[in-house]
Amino acid sequence: MNDSRLIYLDGNSLGRLPRRAAARLRRAVEQEGGERLIRGWGEGWFTAGQRIGAKLSRLVGAPADDVVVSDSTSVNLFKLAVAALRARPGRSTVVTDDLNFPTDLYVLQGAIDLLGQGHRLAVAKSEDGLTVSEAALARAIDADTALVALSHTAYRSAFVHDLARVTALAHRAGALALWDLSHSIGVLPLALGATGADLAVACTYKYVNGGPGAPALLYVRRDLQESLTNPIWGWFGRRDQFDMAPDYRPGPGIQRFLVGTPPILSLLAVEPAVDLLLEAGLDRIRAKSVAQTEYLIRLWERELAPLGFTLNSPRDPARRGSHISLGHPEALRIDRALIEDMAVLPDFRYPDNLRLGVAPLYTSFADLHHAVARIARVVRERRYERYPAERPTIT
Amino acid sequence: MNDSRLIYLDGNSLGRLPRRAAARLRRAVEQEGGERLIRGWGEGWFTAGQRIGAKLSRLVGAPADDVVVSDSTSVNLFKLAVAALRARPGRSTVVTDDLNFPTDLYVLQGAIDLLGQGHRLAVAKSEDGLTVSEAALARAIDADTALVALSHTAYRSAFVHDLARVTALAHRAGALALWDLSHSIGVLPLALGATGADLAVACTYKYVNGGPGAPALLYVRRDLQESLTNPIWGWFGRRDQFDMAPDYRPGPGIQRFLVGTPPILSLLAVEPAVDLLLEAGLDRIRAKSVAQTEYLIRLWERELAPLGFTLNSPRDPARRGSHISLGHPEALRIDRALIEDMAVLPDFRYPDNLRLGVAPLYTSFADLHHAVARIARVVRERRYERYPAERPTIT
Repeated sequence: MNDSRLIYLDGNSLGRLPRRAAARLRRAVEQEGGERLIRGWGEGWFTAGQRIGAKLSRLVGAPADDVVVSDSTSVNLFKLAVAALRARPGRSTVVTDDLNFPTDLYVLQGAIDLLGQGHRLAVAKSEDGLTVSEAALARAIDADTALVALSHTAYRSAFVHDLARVTALAHRAGALALWDLSHSIGVLPLALGATGADLAVACTYKYVNGGPGAPALLYVRRDLQESLTNPIWGWFGRRDQFDMAPDYRPGPGIQRFLVGTPPILSLLAVEPAVDLLLEAGLDRIRAKSVAQTEYLIRLWERELAPLGFTLNSPRDPARRGSHISLGHPEALRIDRALIEDMAVLPDFRYPDNLRLGVAPLYTSFADLHHAVARIARVVRERRYERYPAERPTIT
Repeated sequence: MNDSRLIYLDGNSLGRLPRRAAARLRRAVEQEGGERLIRGWGEGWFTAGQRIGAKLSRLVGAPADDVVVSDSTSVNLFKLAVAALRARPGRSTVVTDDLNFPTDLYVLQGAIDLLGQGHRLAVAKSEDGLTVSEAALARAIDADTALVALSHTAYRSAFVHDLARVTALAHRAGALALWDLSHSIGVLPLALGATGADLAVACTYKYVNGGPGAPALLYVRRDLQESLTNPIWGWFGRRDQFDMAPDYRPGPGIQRFLVGTPPILSLLAVEPAVDLLLEAGLDRIRAKSVAQTEYLIRLWERELAPLGFTLNSPRDPARRGSHISLGHPEALRIDRALIEDMAVLPDFRYPDNLRLGVAPLYTSFADLHHAVARIARVVRERRYERYPAERPTIT
């Protein structure tokens, strides 16, 4: 391996689009531009959200008919949060935690503002900034809790909630559990069905490699589907979509959570990416991921801890996703130096976190070895000092 | 021209993706798959919704800063309809008409169901099934009207509302006007700014040729932007998006109507398509469109009226968009025969409408001449009788 080769450690933010997805897109564009035109809709476009949802269901351990792909993660979270709150009319609290991704907090705040019936957000606090205990969640969840909405894997520390146990906590209080699986899907085996989780969303452009901003997963447990109301009524969610009748009637099952015409080019790219993951096998991906994050922690201990880096991810692999966060007072400038000088692409999280993402499909152990060597060099040679300490407007 | 060449007359439903859009996509995928990776976000992806919105603003006659591209037409309609209803708290009626696209009616019904404060939909009726008179709208709009939400060009008949006059009707009653420009944009010059229209959405995959299901336009008049609340709060709509702070604060101006991470591949394809329209010039496109729909009406009169076809579009070009609807009791089977036998792609609208879309960028007068000849042949030779009268599940 050439030491100057680009090392990509941001697959936890944006996965690499597989070659076969690029080929699938070329075919779609050629059909679209010249040949099949409108007939593409009859040839698999109309049902792509369900078809690809069925494939994704295997990544999250859900029945094939209970998953669709549509809209963005935020829009899907909105649909499910509003539906859940309306399904628990006497209750007014949404429980989340302070490790949740900010956009999820925003969506929940917006749903509460919209419903405007004295709802409030209760935020369970992390004691160490890295993890949230079940005890903290248990204290926040009570008989007034309508919904527990959490990110399964925390975007900063990679801490992983116990999906089954937290879902059970929610259920014991009579609340619904809504999981954002964005930082778990494609790298952690999940069991939505077996754990009884009620609702889930996930993005498909991190470890799933579906392409930037690809449409998102939406899951609703089978027995809840017919009792929940998607607040956004569009023709893709309507029973007998092609009737063009003037009145909305929700479609059967999971279909009712679809809305409008999906962005086909972005949607089609997801399918070959999921196929690749299914071929590789989630168990093998997870095994490599654990081995790689453990290796990264050993490298940190030996090479980076002496240079002032702290480990900001859990030590226990069972409670850790597939990235490692390292804290350093100069993390922002180190990140700039790695990108500009050292051909390493990690990512930076305010205020002092360097995130190193491990995507087992394309991250090698050698990548990790070389990346750590380059990080060490940036600090030892004080190369980061050439870069300003201000955050760029767009990171 | 070879008489067997495919004639595409469904550009009003799905436009043809321009070659340069295909090239743009190839570049995005190559960057994405191998080279720039996450850095794409810093190189124009984060701001693509605003940048492409600014270009689209020239197609709808709006200031550049008042238009964004995001989500689907239905999701954008939802955001604006809910925002409008919340901005008119004492009023409970949404006025629309029965020529509106069904999915728009569904979204409005859903918004009413969600707000649940005694809101109702008042549907102005068409007297002839083709047009809706200003008098009918004036009767429906009153002091209880919160919102007038209409499709500017009707998807079946191609009837075009007078945007300025109907907006003025809404304003005189103290209501807001929300326009769906999906069947107008890219083929009719529009003047959202000059007419004082409050809100608008439009799809970008019909005459704009942005690719199947491409993200949609959203417009809010400048002076309303800061007073309206997008019900879906996501990080793309937040002031200082990259702060990752836990509380949502709406962004300045039109940015607050964005939500989550957009589907970049589908979004990027829109830009070169808009550039092409701007180069061609909307006035020239409109002039060719009018000449072509007039030509099509003359051909109908001479060739198709004698075979039992009725003209289901307005005669007055000022009140007509860029497609012609023809009624025939056997329209469904004629449509099948044209597609299967005659290399003509029109589209069919329940129960007995054949729609012939004119997309001036790529529809030629010869296309129209040959298409009419082939339609006449299907009827004269009773070729449609080989096809079943049942509608296929997916059309």
